[in-house]
Amino acid sequence: MSELNRKSPERLQDRVDQVVQLLERHGLADALVRGHGGPGLINPLQQQDQIELQHRLDELHSADVAYILESLPLAERLAVWQLVKYDRDGEILLEVSDAVREILIADMDNQEIIAAANMLDADELADLAPDLPRDVVRELMDMLDAQQRERLRSALSYDEDEVGALMDFDMVTIRDDVTLEVVSRYLRRFDILPDHTDKLFVVDNDGRLQGVLPIKKLLVSSPDALVAEVMVTDPVIFDPQAHASEAAQAFERYDLVTAPVVDAGGVLCGRLTVDEVLDYIRQESETEALNSAGLREEEDIFASVWKSVRNRWAWLAINLCTALIASRVIGLFEGAIEQLVALAALMPIVAGIGGNSGNQTITMIVRGIATGQVQVAHGQRLLRKEAGVAMINGLFWGLMLAIIAYILYGNVALSVVLMAAMLLNMLLAALMGVVIPLARLRTGGDPALGSSVLITAITDSGGFFIFLGLATLFLL
Amino acid sequence: MSELNRKSPERLQDRVDQVVQLLERHGLADALVRGHGGPGLINPLQQQDQIELQHRLDELHSADVAYILESLPLAERLAVWQLVKYDRDGEILLEVSDAVREILIADMDNQEIIAAANMLDADELADLAPDLPRDVVRELMDMLDAQQRERLRSALSYDEDEVGALMDFDMVTIRDDVTLEVVSRYLRRFDILPDHTDKLFVVDNDGRLQGVLPIKKLLVSSPDALVAEVMVTDPVIFDPQAHASEAAQAFERYDLVTAPVVDAGGVLCGRLTVDEVLDYIRQESETEALNSAGLREEEDIFASVWKSVRNRWAWLAINLCTALIASRVIGLFEGAIEQLVALAALMPIVAGIGGNSGNQTITMIVRGIATGQVQVAHGQRLLRKEAGVAMINGLFWGLMLAIIAYILYGNVALSVVLMAAMLLNMLLAALMGVVIPLARLRTGGDPALGSSVLITAITDSGGFFIFLGLATLFLL
Repeated sequence: MSELNRKSPERLQDRVDQVVQLLERHGLADALVRGHGGPGLINPLQQQDQIELQHRLDELHSADVAYILESLPLAERLAVWQLVKYDRDGEILLEVSDAVREILIADMDNQEIIAAANMLDADELADLAPDLPRDVVRELMDMLDAQQRERLRSALSYDEDEVGALMDFDMVTIRDDVTLEVVSRYLRRFDILPDHTDKLFVVDNDGRLQGVLPIKKLLVSSPDALVAEVMVTDPVIFDPQAHASEAAQAFERYDLVTAPVVDAGGVLCGRLTVDEVLDYIRQESETEALNSAGLREEEDIFASVWKSVRNRWAWLAINLCTALIASRVIGLFEGAIEQLVALAALMPIVAGIGGNSGNQTITMIVRGIATGQVQVAHGQRLLRKEAGVAMINGLFWGLMLAIIAYILYGNVALSVVLMAAMLLNMLLAALMGVVIPLARLRTGGDPALGSSVLITAITDSGGFFIFLGLATLFLL
Repeated sequence: MSELNRKSPERLQDRVDQVVQLLERHGLADALVRGHGGPGLINPLQQQDQIELQHRLDELHSADVAYILESLPLAERLAVWQLVKYDRDGEILLEVSDAVREILIADMDNQEIIAAANMLDADELADLAPDLPRDVVRELMDMLDAQQRERLRSALSYDEDEVGALMDFDMVTIRDDVTLEVVSRYLRRFDILPDHTDKLFVVDNDGRLQGVLPIKKLLVSSPDALVAEVMVTDPVIFDPQAHASEAAQAFERYDLVTAPVVDAGGVLCGRLTVDEVLDYIRQESETEALNSAGLREEEDIFASVWKSVRNRWAWLAINLCTALIASRVIGLFEGAIEQLVALAALMPIVAGIGGNSGNQTITMIVRGIATGQVQVAHGQRLLRKEAGVAMINGLFWGLMLAIIAYILYGNVALSVVLMAAMLLNMLLAALMGVVIPLARLRTGGDPALGSSVLITAITDSGGFFIFLGLATLFLL
């Protein structure tokens, strides 16, 4: 058992530490980066470290090398990158995050890139292509055979979020008029079957999908049975133009490992595998989490300060604009604040709670829309429900706050205005939390995009306006 | 091709609409809920609808029935639930969301629950058990055979977030001293192989894992070869006590479909499948998104107002506390605001931008920790970088804001104070954004938990304090 592989992040971190140690104990990293791998610049001790390091890297899975590259600061990262065998460069580039990939590719010359890309399949090349220099892509295109070039072109023709961009071409196809015995013999002629092969694709002479033969069925059925008798004729299939998130939902729902991708004419054009779907789901949830925190894209943790500033400035700018609007709303009521300065201390509470409450509502609705359970037709029902929730929360928390404010300021009228403002702002938040995503859904927009920023902007400015407005009307 | 199944959310929505139509056109839903399925209360037209509806439901995948149940308002949901064949109840309960499952189980009597649970495997029962009445679980335990009971007990002994809670027991095990021919014959004796069987598990007489035989290899290798010659001896394996998120990362990294779960003694105790991992990943990212919006758990979109209020109140309470603290900070400076009311209008900008910037930093760090790429040892380096980013952003946006403030108020000193406060609050945000998650990591806490609330609380109160404090010192 000891040779079995208990893999875990801790273990991976140990490996990163070992690599760092090898790079640093005799200054190998510096020597490599300075000499860019040229001979003569590396002393014997460093050479020994280099050999050991290379040996360790060769033993690791490409995904682990990718992880190590991501975990290393820039100089060490490039030193390790030089030591990776060129025939693994392509695979590793596919595994690293976008931010790190950019840095690694920038460190390679065109010949190195082409050598690395040559080891990849058409669908993998398509994933890499957007990050490669234009002339390299052209050169690669020329080097491919006709079938590969056609596949690359087809894969590149799809949008990033379409099923076609995720599919691969590693399909084992069979005919329906042969016996399972013949299929088994046919399979035995392969050196190796494509990863994730859990079903064979049954096609006719024109490449049209007739059904699928799950390997599970192949293994338990009589060898004399015909494929046509055993195959499943109603598998879940996907259109290459379908949105990847639909495919991801179907993979989750029906517990799929692979599924055929079929064009409008019924011709099998590729295959979707669960590992691509998993990557897609992870990436989507990353993007969502980053965007909701105001980051444009994934940031290499060791990225330069300038790169980070560029990544973050867009959302800060938006935030500044919304904050300025809120500030101008307050500016309208400077007279009121001058007369009753307690207003200044209380107004951020009204705005803050409204924002929190609005974010709760809009998050529920956006998620419901994403899973398809919320439709435009549900608008009224949802509005009634959210208004009810806002009413209860507004009355309860408003009352709490009114009591606290009374203890602090001893002003009953101020407390009543505060409570009314809380309630109204929470109702505004509920209304906008339902209306904004449903309006976006009706007009075909993305209900999630910037929803949190928008609702917070509304509840901030709205909260200040309602509270200070009511105060002006009733207190002064 | 027409009988092939193009599944997509739109299609599913059509089915939901058809179900709703059948339930409503002759009042079937009302009749069912009123009569609770009893005879005599349903008129002939309704009976016809019921038969058609039942037929449609029988044809659907359990996951699709679950989706329909989730998409229906309460009365319609319970009506449909009555029409689902009892032998599918268990499967469907496994598929619906927690919130909906609670409602469905509350609608069943103990005998119905036991009948449904009887159709499930031990690992599935374990998933359901926490939602079932205590006495039902006891009764179920008594009905299981010794092996199933042992498995259920073992599955229940693990924490929700441990690999043991996700594993199932559907393993095909073989010995290493037989030929592939024998293995193939053995497999043919199964009526059906477990879902996701991409590898067979090779164990010795004591049940200790020796290796795995990928089906891919079984299919292409010579039938005369021994299992021992062909099997993979270093598969990725998991400890049942390992954290599920580690397993999820390994599944993504190594593109796994299934993996053996092995205890400390080397004994194979279960199997992890990609569909469970996928569900886990989706659930984690859901929880994260909900929490960051201040929702405790997933909410049934048609839940009652009261249920929603309960789900949301905790975070609103926390939010109110932090808002009150910020309000008291402002209260300290009421004198300053009275003298220079522009401070009241400008202070939310300082706090808001600081919060946005702090959230950006903490999100980066928390994500880096989650993937294992950020260690406590990186603290200094990260602090320098984030301070650099904050410095640049603070100077730039501070200057922009200072200019705008000068245009509005024509007060140079006020503009300078505003700029200084922006810069200092952004530095505070950067410092806390790095220190909070790393301190939590060092003390073994969850770096993500409430991180956004905490940083926002600090940048709000801190922003008000810095801005109003500087103003008091230099402007009055």
